[in-house]
Amino acid sequence: MTFSVTILGNSAALPTRNHHTTAQVVTYHNQLFLLDCGEGTQNQIRDLGIKVSRVSHIFISHLHGDHYYGILGLITTLHLQRRTQPLTIISPSGLKEIIQLNLLASGTELSYELLFIEIHPHTEILYEDEFLCVTPIPMIHRIPCYGYLFTEKKGRVNVKSEALNEYKIPIEEISSIKAGGGFKTTSGIIVPHEKLVIKRPQRKYAFCSDTIFSDSYLKRIMHVDLLYHESTFLKQDADKAKDRFHCTSEQAAIVAREVGAKKLLLGHFSSRYASEELFENEARHIFPNSYSSIEGETYGIE
Amino acid sequence: MTFSVTILGNSAALPTRNHHTTAQVVTYHNQLFLLDCGEGTQNQIRDLGIKVSRVSHIFISHLHGDHYYGILGLITTLHLQRRTQPLTIISPSGLKEIIQLNLLASGTELSYELLFIEIHPHTEILYEDEFLCVTPIPMIHRIPCYGYLFTEKKGRVNVKSEALNEYKIPIEEISSIKAGGGFKTTSGIIVPHEKLVIKRPQRKYAFCSDTIFSDSYLKRIMHVDLLYHESTFLKQDADKAKDRFHCTSEQAAIVAREVGAKKLLLGHFSSRYASEELFENEARHIFPNSYSSIEGETYGIE
Repeated sequence: MTFSVTILGNSAALPTRNHHTTAQVVTYHNQLFLLDCGEGTQNQIRDLGIKVSRVSHIFISHLHGDHYYGILGLITTLHLQRRTQPLTIISPSGLKEIIQLNLLASGTELSYELLFIEIHPHTEILYEDEFLCVTPIPMIHRIPCYGYLFTEKKGRVNVKSEALNEYKIPIEEISSIKAGGGFKTTSGIIVPHEKLVIKRPQRKYAFCSDTIFSDSYLKRIMHVDLLYHESTFLKQDADKAKDRFHCTSEQAAIVAREVGAKKLLLGHFSSRYASEELFENEARHIFPNSYSSIEGETYGIE
Repeated sequence: MTFSVTILGNSAALPTRNHHTTAQVVTYHNQLFLLDCGEGTQNQIRDLGIKVSRVSHIFISHLHGDHYYGILGLITTLHLQRRTQPLTIISPSGLKEIIQLNLLASGTELSYELLFIEIHPHTEILYEDEFLCVTPIPMIHRIPCYGYLFTEKKGRVNVKSEALNEYKIPIEEISSIKAGGGFKTTSGIIVPHEKLVIKRPQRKYAFCSDTIFSDSYLKRIMHVDLLYHESTFLKQDADKAKDRFHCTSEQAAIVAREVGAKKLLLGHFSSRYASEELFENEARHIFPNSYSSIEGETYGIE
C-alpha cells in the first residue's frame, strides 16, 4: 500500500513568489486526504496532476487564513466539475458557518453533499476505515488548532522474493498468502505462512502545524515514521516564535528526537529568511534526519 | 493624469494554468482601485509590482466566488504588512458579514480600519473626489451584480507645447495656466488662457461583468472611452450564455457599438475554448476596435 505525503504549500502566513500557504495531500493506496487548504490550493492540485476526485476528506488544522482560504475555491471548482461523491470537511468549529454563508451569498446548491465533522477537545477518532485511522493532535496555538496523526491499522505483509523464486509461487496465490495462508508446492509440501512472508510494522504519519514549542502533544506522536512539524522561525528568532505561538527549527528537531521519529520534515517557513536550507541545517544539529520540505515533492512514509 | 486599467485576471469561474479569475486595477494618477478580487489576486498584485498601499477602495461586482474569493487573503496580507490607512470595500450586501465571520474565527483585529459600502438598486454614487466619480451599473445576473463606471469629473487641460516654446513659459507657471490663468511674457504681453491650452474631454471607463445580454444598462455607459465587457462564451454557445446569465463576444460587441464606445476589451473567458483570439475575432465583425484582454497588460483610457 502506498503511503505518502505530497507538499502543496509550506509557507507561513504570507504566500511568496516561490511558496504557497499550507496544504498537503496524504495518499494511502488509492485514497487521498487533503490537509489544510491555503489560498491557491486548487491551482497546486491542478498543476501537480493530483486526482482531486479521490479526495474524500479535507482536514483543516485551524481557522487562520493561511490554512483554509483556498477551501471555498476548491469546493466551488468541484461543483463546477460536477462532483457527485460526498466530501467531508474536518475542522475546529466555525468553518461550517463560513462555508454555508458563502454558498448562501452566491446562491449555490452544490452538486455533491458536504459533510462536516467538528473537532472538540474530547474528540478521539476523526476517520477510520479497514486500513487507516486518523486522530487529532491538540496543538497549542492562538486559536483552537489540531495536528493529525495517520496510523496504519495493520502492519503490511509482503511475500519474500526468495520464497517466490524458491517455491515458484504463481501470482494468483499471493493475496491468499498475504491474508494468512500457506502454500502447497507442486510436490505436495505445504510451506507455512510464516516462512513465506515478511511482516512490516504499522506506519504512522504526524502533521503538526501550527503550534508553540510544548511537550503536551509528544505522547500522541511517539515513534512516528514521518513527522511534518512547523518550523516558522530560526533559533535566532526564538522570542518571536514564542510570542506568535510558533516553533523554531531547533524546537521541531527536539520534538522529533523526543518522540523517536524516523524522519523530520520541516515546513510553515516564514518568508523573512534567505533560504530553506537554513531550517534543515539548524534542525540537523539536534536530529540528523531532518529535511526542509519542498513544494511539489512526495515523501514516502516507510 | 494617468487613467488606465491593468488586468490581473480574466478567466470565468474556473482558474486555469494560464488565467486567474476576475480582478483588475484602475489607476487614476496616484490612486488605485481594485475591481473584483478572485482567488490569488494578492499574488498577481505582488508579481506585477502593483503598489497595494495605494489601493484605497475595492469594488466587488457580485458574490460569486470567482469575483471575491481572494479578498480575505488580501485583507489578511495587508494586515500582516501593517497597513494603517483605511480600506473601503464596496459591494452588494452580504460581503461584510462574510469578512467579519472569517476575522472573528481567526481572532484577527486588523491593523487598519475596514469600511463597507453596500450597493442597493437606488445607489447613485459609490465614490467621488475632486477628479473622479464612480457610479454603479446594474447588471442582469443570477444574483445582485453591479458593473462600475469611472468618470473623470473635468476634462484635462494641457498647455500646448508650441505655446511653451513660443512664450518660453517656465515650469512653475504651468499649474496656474492649467487652473485657468493666462501668461505674461517678458515683454509684458498677456497671452490669454484659451490661446495657451488644449482641452481634452472627460474620460470614462466602464467595467461590465457579469451579465446576460440586455439593453437595460446601455444608457449608463454611453460614449465610454474604454468598455471592459464580459464575453464568457462564443456565439456558437449563445444558448449556454443565456442560460447562465452571461454574454457571447458578439453580444459584448453589440453593446460596444450601441453605446458608441471607443474601444472594447473582452474578458471573463470560459476555459472551454482553445484560444482567446477567437473572442476578439468574433467581436471585430460587429465592433472592429475589440481586443481580448491579456493578464498583466495595462490599457490606457484615452
